[in-house]
Amino acid sequence: MYGIVPVGHIRSPLIDRAHAPMQGSEGAPDARLVFEPQYLDALRDLRAGDEILVLTWLHQSDRSVLRVHPRDNMAAPLRGVFSTRSPDRPNPIGIHRVRILAVDTPLELTVGELEAIDGTPIIDIKPVLDRARER
Amino acid sequence: MYGIVPVGHIRSPLIDRAHAPMQGSEGAPDARLVFEPQYLDALRDLRAGDEILVLTWLHQSDRSVLRVHPRDNMAAPLRGVFSTRSPDRPNPIGIHRVRILAVDTPLELTVGELEAIDGTPIIDIKPVLDRARER
Repeated sequence: MYGIVPVGHIRSPLIDRAHAPMQGSEGAPDARLVFEPQYLDALRDLRAGDEILVLTWLHQSDRSVLRVHPRDNMAAPLRGVFSTRSPDRPNPIGIHRVRILAVDTPLELTVGELEAIDGTPIIDIKPVLDRARER
Repeated sequence: MYGIVPVGHIRSPLIDRAHAPMQGSEGAPDARLVFEPQYLDALRDLRAGDEILVLTWLHQSDRSVLRVHPRDNMAAPLRGVFSTRSPDRPNPIGIHRVRILAVDTPLELTVGELEAIDGTPIIDIKPVLDRARER
């Protein structure tokens, strides 16, 4: 067992998992990433225009779920969660690829099209590498 | 604070972080993903040929590091870790994009070009979505 420490949280108009889009590209709103002051040095080189991966802890997830109907479609056969992006999974880590729209303060970023709900803990930020290597 | 539970671990000829490539595409060897039996149902729909993201817990990382010389190049200026892929970061989660080469047993997969070292805990597996949406 390892301990994850939130480094910030998401501020979003999305307040309810049931009404959030399943992926950022499916009509998600812009959101604000608000960081804890002790991570200031880790944030210094992020710039407007950068594409980043926001890793979150999907705190409303059911960690006991191993199989799901993909995209909540009950007509679809059950699938193992490791072949889906279901938030319900043993370690509910979300990966959201977004673009930084603005660095509002040294501890606050505005990003485009993020499907995570308000209050979701942020656990890491990574730069997007080139398209051929990773997505 | 949230608790991460390893769902498996990596078996690799790479045994030393100092000699591991920094990215899978930089000469990393094939590796085996070995899962704990209780996650069998989560694994069922993974197939040879699938591209997946392997999320790992980079257990040898220094979690107190907030700025690094990118790619261990001491001539490069220090950067905040959130704009690098350094394994040293507050929550040392690795994201590795690999292709499944073989499903060896229901609990063991062989994957191509993985830069994580032998014994690294696996914490999640996700399918790769289409190129336009995420990487």
